[in-house]
Amino acid sequence: MSLWGGRFQDKIDDLMKQLNDSFRFDRRLYAADIRGSVAYAGALSDTGLLTDEECQSIIDGLEQVRQEFNEGSFQEANDEDIHTAVERRLTEIVGPAAGKLHTGRSRNDQVATDLRLWLIEQIGIVQSDLAAVQAALIDKAEGHLDLIMPGYTHLQPAQPVLFSHWLMSVFWAFDRDQERLDDCKRRTAVCPLGSGALSGTPFPIDRTALAAELGMPAISPNSMDAVSDRDFVAEFLFAASLIGIHISRLAEDLIIMSGPGRRFVTLGEQYTTGSSLMPQKRNPDSLELVRGKTGRILGALVGLLTVLKGLPSTYNKDLQEDKEPLFDTADTLAMVLPVLAGVIGSLVPSPDAMRGALDMAMLATDLADYLVDRGVPFREAHHITGHLVRRAEEQGITLDQLPLDVLQAESAVFDADAAAIFDFERAVSRRAAPGGTAPETAREQIAQAHKCLVARNRA
Amino acid sequence: MSLWGGRFQDKIDDLMKQLNDSFRFDRRLYAADIRGSVAYAGALSDTGLLTDEECQSIIDGLEQVRQEFNEGSFQEANDEDIHTAVERRLTEIVGPAAGKLHTGRSRNDQVATDLRLWLIEQIGIVQSDLAAVQAALIDKAEGHLDLIMPGYTHLQPAQPVLFSHWLMSVFWAFDRDQERLDDCKRRTAVCPLGSGALSGTPFPIDRTALAAELGMPAISPNSMDAVSDRDFVAEFLFAASLIGIHISRLAEDLIIMSGPGRRFVTLGEQYTTGSSLMPQKRNPDSLELVRGKTGRILGALVGLLTVLKGLPSTYNKDLQEDKEPLFDTADTLAMVLPVLAGVIGSLVPSPDAMRGALDMAMLATDLADYLVDRGVPFREAHHITGHLVRRAEEQGITLDQLPLDVLQAESAVFDADAAAIFDFERAVSRRAAPGGTAPETAREQIAQAHKCLVARNRA
Amino acid sequence: MSLWGGRFQDKIDDLMKQLNDSFRFDRRLYAADIRGSVAYAGALSDTGLLTDEECQSIIDGLEQVRQEFNEGSFQEANDEDIHTAVERRLTEIVGPAAGKLHTGRSRNDQVATDLRLWLIEQIGIVQSDLAAVQAALIDKAEGHLDLIMPGYTHLQPAQPVLFSHWLMSVFWAFDRDQERLDDCKRRTAVCPLGSGALSGTPFPIDRTALAAELGMPAISPNSMDAVSDRDFVAEFLFAASLIGIHISRLAEDLIIMSGPGRRFVTLGEQYTTGSSLMPQKRNPDSLELVRGKTGRILGALVGLLTVLKGLPSTYNKDLQEDKEPLFDTADTLAMVLPVLAGVIGSLVPSPDAMRGALDMAMLATDLADYLVDRGVPFREAHHITGHLVRRAEEQGITLDQLPLDVLQAESAVFDADAAAIFDFERAVSRRAAPGGTAPETAREQIAQAHKCLVARNRA
Amino acid sequence: MSLWGGRFQDKIDDLMKQLNDSFRFDRRLYAADIRGSVAYAGALSDTGLLTDEECQSIIDGLEQVRQEFNEGSFQEANDEDIHTAVERRLTEIVGPAAGKLHTGRSRNDQVATDLRLWLIEQIGIVQSDLAAVQAALIDKAEGHLDLIMPGYTHLQPAQPVLFSHWLMSVFWAFDRDQERLDDCKRRTAVCPLGSGALSGTPFPIDRTALAAELGMPAISPNSMDAVSDRDFVAEFLFAASLIGIHISRLAEDLIIMSGPGRRFVTLGEQYTTGSSLMPQKRNPDSLELVRGKTGRILGALVGLLTVLKGLPSTYNKDLQEDKEPLFDTADTLAMVLPVLAGVIGSLVPSPDAMRGALDMAMLATDLADYLVDRGVPFREAHHITGHLVRRAEEQGITLDQLPLDVLQAESAVFDADAAAIFDFERAVSRRAAPGGTAPETAREQIAQAHKCLVARNRA
Repeated sequence: MSLWGGRFQDKIDDLMKQLNDSFRFDRRLYAADIRGSVAYAGALSDTGLLTDEECQSIIDGLEQVRQEFNEGSFQEANDEDIHTAVERRLTEIVGPAAGKLHTGRSRNDQVATDLRLWLIEQIGIVQSDLAAVQAALIDKAEGHLDLIMPGYTHLQPAQPVLFSHWLMSVFWAFDRDQERLDDCKRRTAVCPLGSGALSGTPFPIDRTALAAELGMPAISPNSMDAVSDRDFVAEFLFAASLIGIHISRLAEDLIIMSGPGRRFVTLGEQYTTGSSLMPQKRNPDSLELVRGKTGRILGALVGLLTVLKGLPSTYNKDLQEDKEPLFDTADTLAMVLPVLAGVIGSLVPSPDAMRGALDMAMLATDLADYLVDRGVPFREAHHITGHLVRRAEEQGITLDQLPLDVLQAESAVFDADAAAIFDFERAVSRRAAPGGTAPETAREQIAQAHKCLVARNRA
Repeated sequence: MSLWGGRFQDKIDDLMKQLNDSFRFDRRLYAADIRGSVAYAGALSDTGLLTDEECQSIIDGLEQVRQEFNEGSFQEANDEDIHTAVERRLTEIVGPAAGKLHTGRSRNDQVATDLRLWLIEQIGIVQSDLAAVQAALIDKAEGHLDLIMPGYTHLQPAQPVLFSHWLMSVFWAFDRDQERLDDCKRRTAVCPLGSGALSGTPFPIDRTALAAELGMPAISPNSMDAVSDRDFVAEFLFAASLIGIHISRLAEDLIIMSGPGRRFVTLGEQYTTGSSLMPQKRNPDSLELVRGKTGRILGALVGLLTVLKGLPSTYNKDLQEDKEPLFDTADTLAMVLPVLAGVIGSLVPSPDAMRGALDMAMLATDLADYLVDRGVPFREAHHITGHLVRRAEEQGITLDQLPLDVLQAESAVFDADAAAIFDFERAVSRRAAPGGTAPETAREQIAQAHKCLVARNRA
Repeated sequence: MSLWGGRFQDKIDDLMKQLNDSFRFDRRLYAADIRGSVAYAGALSDTGLLTDEECQSIIDGLEQVRQEFNEGSFQEANDEDIHTAVERRLTEIVGPAAGKLHTGRSRNDQVATDLRLWLIEQIGIVQSDLAAVQAALIDKAEGHLDLIMPGYTHLQPAQPVLFSHWLMSVFWAFDRDQERLDDCKRRTAVCPLGSGALSGTPFPIDRTALAAELGMPAISPNSMDAVSDRDFVAEFLFAASLIGIHISRLAEDLIIMSGPGRRFVTLGEQYTTGSSLMPQKRNPDSLELVRGKTGRILGALVGLLTVLKGLPSTYNKDLQEDKEPLFDTADTLAMVLPVLAGVIGSLVPSPDAMRGALDMAMLATDLADYLVDRGVPFREAHHITGHLVRRAEEQGITLDQLPLDVLQAESAVFDADAAAIFDFERAVSRRAAPGGTAPETAREQIAQAHKCLVARNRA
Repeated sequence: MSLWGGRFQDKIDDLMKQLNDSFRFDRRLYAADIRGSVAYAGALSDTGLLTDEECQSIIDGLEQVRQEFNEGSFQEANDEDIHTAVERRLTEIVGPAAGKLHTGRSRNDQVATDLRLWLIEQIGIVQSDLAAVQAALIDKAEGHLDLIMPGYTHLQPAQPVLFSHWLMSVFWAFDRDQERLDDCKRRTAVCPLGSGALSGTPFPIDRTALAAELGMPAISPNSMDAVSDRDFVAEFLFAASLIGIHISRLAEDLIIMSGPGRRFVTLGEQYTTGSSLMPQKRNPDSLELVRGKTGRILGALVGLLTVLKGLPSTYNKDLQEDKEPLFDTADTLAMVLPVLAGVIGSLVPSPDAMRGALDMAMLATDLADYLVDRGVPFREAHHITGHLVRRAEEQGITLDQLPLDVLQAESAVFDADAAAIFDFERAVSRRAAPGGTAPETAREQIAQAHKCLVARNRA
């Protein structure tokens, strides 16, 4: 049929090969693949399926392959994926004995093992990069414990808070991310090797010892589950998505805080760029870029879950779509987190701008609290204060300028000492319950945060 | 302006109220809200902000409100949300003293507390329902340890496996879900109460004691973070999404296994339905319905993450969109999981159909393993076996019907004992390494699974 | 087995019924269902499968059922879905002849028809609500053609623009949404009735006439496709998602424009709310709420696409999950769009705040253009202007305060007439190419927009 | 500060550059960028802003740059993006006059124009590849008009259908995709050039002529909208997502149809692969791979919509995240669609397997229709037939083996001619209303489909 002539078919065959092959993206698993094979050779040797000499020869050969990858001298040969590439090269080096390495092992359990080994290491990198961001937040918070700025809810001025308190609020969100990564790492460190294609291995491999050799404390309990389980990938992508959400919130805050109308902080010049048309611009590109990356990460999560939806059990080739979203997400975090640490380190706060944005109306709650302390039920106190805020507005004066008799007309409880309310330092210092914005509380938060990071470094 | 005439504006105002109000869906938080308020009254009383009498009166009033909700006798009054509804009714019951309950508390920390309390309980329900599904899997697996069926990869027959092994592969996926729910519950049980609107409370509340009173082992470390953190909701929706993915896989397997061409299992009649047009049909509606629910749950996760993306810190009203996806997901699981347990309990396996679908070609790997056991490198053995499979195909006979001389023509290693390979029981029994499909291994899996469930019940 | 005792099973059976039944949400299809049945009765009558009397009796009966739904007097009887409910009631009214209505019709083609009929009408409602938002934008833009405010890119001040120009930028985004809804409506108006369960109808129904009777210009070309096609639902959810994205952008803009540091506009009080703890607050809740709804709509889209992914062809019960996301999205738009129209109508711009935020540096591009007009290549002009902006910054003066000799030191091209550049009205008026911010161009935009709406109203 | 020492900062600066720069992925826009610049030079020349010589020199220079890209000889120089790369190289070639090309143009309107030009061309490619898939479906359908196979609903045998009817059901889904791509292309072909950074151009560019020169029939009506509008990207990603959904359905169908228990079709060997462990396997990898790609495309859509959510108006750097999901999706379709066409072309149907799977119970509806033709209301006929199906099942015979007296015991209407019902050809031929499965209808479908493709080719 003319439509399906030769040249078209050639193009299709090329595309089919491209669709099927994964070497172009899974070659980065080489170290994990070789590590897994080295351990597996040892396990085969323990059962007598390899002689000591065969085992040593295979291990030496694998080391050479690793070396070639490390040095960039590995020669491709149209390999389908990283596993066949390593096996092909190993055979070239050690001869047919290489064929024994695959005894009782399937690509299904091999690829699952490789991906887990790779991810365990990658989670470590993400956690370290995230810790650097957290350390930058602590540094900045410690260095500016005296700065008071407006706190906002609904993007409207609400109550005064310490700049450091805001910085630490970001720290704790990232700390939850660290915990989720811990949990994810624990569930990733479960070894599927020895599950065969789907039904287990008929050879007396000591799977627990093999797992331990690979740094994994547990083995997968069921071979059919082991070859299809990609929960650990999804869980990492979700943890990354929440990191992305937290980054997007921080970026949004900083874009607004550094922007016109606030200018509470200035970003390091290296994190802003100019305009091709408007010479006066300094744009917070770094923050917009990291905010935008949230979409990419969430897209990767949705993509993987969509792949998994409705798939029958055990291995199906659809699962080949697990790697690129995972790699892309890890790369994205590896790019974004250090930049974010740099941005935070570069922030220069402007005490004047912060102070200038404070407004006496932000102490209205403190005014209500004054009444509460003198026995007025809070709801009534809230009501009275509302009246006073409106009175001040109507008269075009600030809340602290209302004369005492006006206050007393609303509530007889007011006394001359009410004037002391209108002091932002005092307002901040009053919030001294744990987690509040008082300087002493912030200091405790920082101390606790330091401990978290130190414990994490040790772990 | 004519376009914005009065009646149109009325409609808009109604819709604005509807958009703003959440009582229609957050009323189900009533027990959590009241529980939080009872504890908070105690905390205020400890600091002297409430007298013992006021405290008791408030607690008695709250108990009455709870009773009214429990009995369905609570009278709505156009309340904006559950918090104002409870406060309004409490005021009706105990008078202005009710106003003291809100001392130092904001709706921002209150709603975060309520939602966490509600979710902690809900996670318990999901875990219990999931455990029932797991128990059904164990029951079924224990009862049919002798059944061998084809195991598939790529939906193609691969190797024989125990029906029980397949059942247990589902168990372990759900067990990972249980672990994720544990982790999520731990992170949900962090008490934000005492964070005020955003900056903390100025009153000397003992937050740790208050949290303990509410069954939460930890308090939130930063007030600005506490009022905006919805990570726990996202984490639950993600855990639910993976449950959904696992359910979709199980449903897909069962739809195919019970369908034409296999008929390995029959579903209980109550889980199938007939056709309005085709009287002979028995459709696996229950399984299709639960598979379809995966979309709904994943949609809820994406919806919430989209809400959170790019939101500035602390409370923004967008966060009101956290509840409906959460409630819907919890309701979905509460409907789906028991049905799934019922479906599993109702499965009647057909030994004849399973046996009939077994094919000697599924023992090709065992044929290769025979050679491996006799010293042939696996890759070579795989190659030889491939030849034999094709030979058998060409001659229109099954693999076991190939005469010994044909085997020996491919490899001199073959001997008369090769005939023993062609035995499905033997093939299954050989996979006796942990996690494999051998009956003894399956028994160990089941024993281990029992222990997991028992430990979980105790916890 | 104790675990599966009677009471538990009862609960499961109840839940199975709840899972399976759709009457609680698909009852709102009643008018569409009845309309479809009336037309179908006519089609059967045309072929002689119903006598004229039977046909009339069925149509009268259906009208009565419709009436009962309209009046809220319809009595449920544990009906599985709207189709069985209508059929059951019709049978009660007209007797066994009702059974003839289902000749050659399956629930598969019936439900697809109903959903399309419902959606066609619903799209009309969305388009009308969206047109009201667009009309509000035009009204507001027409009323304030003299207001100049800073235009921002990257949330940094860039160039002066007309407030009206910004308003109209929102108009056009919604106009694209209108076009997408047109396209979606066209593809929804394809009639699947007469496709049977999957293979078509054996009765000589005139499908084209039947479609026309139902207001649909086309019939589905393939019965297997017709009963599984839910593209129209996905397409509506996507169109709604982009509406949501546009709303989220408008809300973000207005939250920032009405917030501290700008106060360019004030929202009508009915669209803001106060704080339970901070009496001075006016929060833009309406805008935050509509912004948050974006997540919900996007979640619905993802949910449906996930349901469809990997589903085999023709009808599968998973498709029952098409309705709730569709209904929820339509309801969301029906609530959100009128509120948005109200918000826009309520906006009161503050000329002083806008003018106060204009900054001479925003005319730097005009300064560069001055040089370009005098033959300097733009890149060089941009460079020179960049220098001047920095000079002014260093000296703490505004760009227009730089003396002529300083300008001339950078470029000899500058002359005394350069002073005329520093005029915001002039800068705005210069952008007079189509689509630019000049007042005359804005007037043309408004005229064109009026025409669009009028044409839409007529259609 | 020790933490932020020099080497760390260098790494951050490198990553910031990597984060910010887009040349590595946007270089593929070179042809679009140069095409846009050539047209823009012409437009500037028309207004007198470029002399004829300058214009010609710029155009010649741009042609040279294009040539260098085409030939792969373009030398990078650490360029930020494709626009600066082209501008830098052009300046090297033609000197400072190159700087005049950017008069009144901003990167904001330039990048939007480039992306639209690129996408318009890309949509053409997708449409052509999709047409090849459709042509393959038609070819296959035409060649096998006599094959009857079971039609399934709920994956259960339902009614006999033509294999060709099933093939054509896929055709029409793809045809809707073609229409959506048409609509998307129309909305993409709107020219934003002349919008400047956000406020329009102050130079008297004839935007309509410029758009026409670029093959775009319309110009963007508002400059602020023009620089932020990415609806066209989202719309393409949605159209691609539905293509993905349709592909996933086709793949699911074919995996099941070619799998064990059916074997209705065989895939070309080049579209299947073997197993590393199980020599007898032929796995439908091509179909699993294309099914898996659905996740990737949907992920791209969700990613982009997440980027857009909550973004303020005009240009924000987050928008740089629009390109990679778009490029990846286009590349995915360019790989997947030709493979799919190849797979379809390679399908070899097995008439015996299809016939063998037909079951007399699939004619139960025809039995009911027999009664309807003789005046029995359908619901009653359905009921009677249901009884007969059960009777046959109980007696272990097929439906056609029920003796006439048994039929008549259920309904006196049955006569000897009822035996004629049990004929699959007859059953298929009866569905002759438009869109039904009768051979003549299928032929009409095919003819109509041919016309669609021809019309599309002409357009």
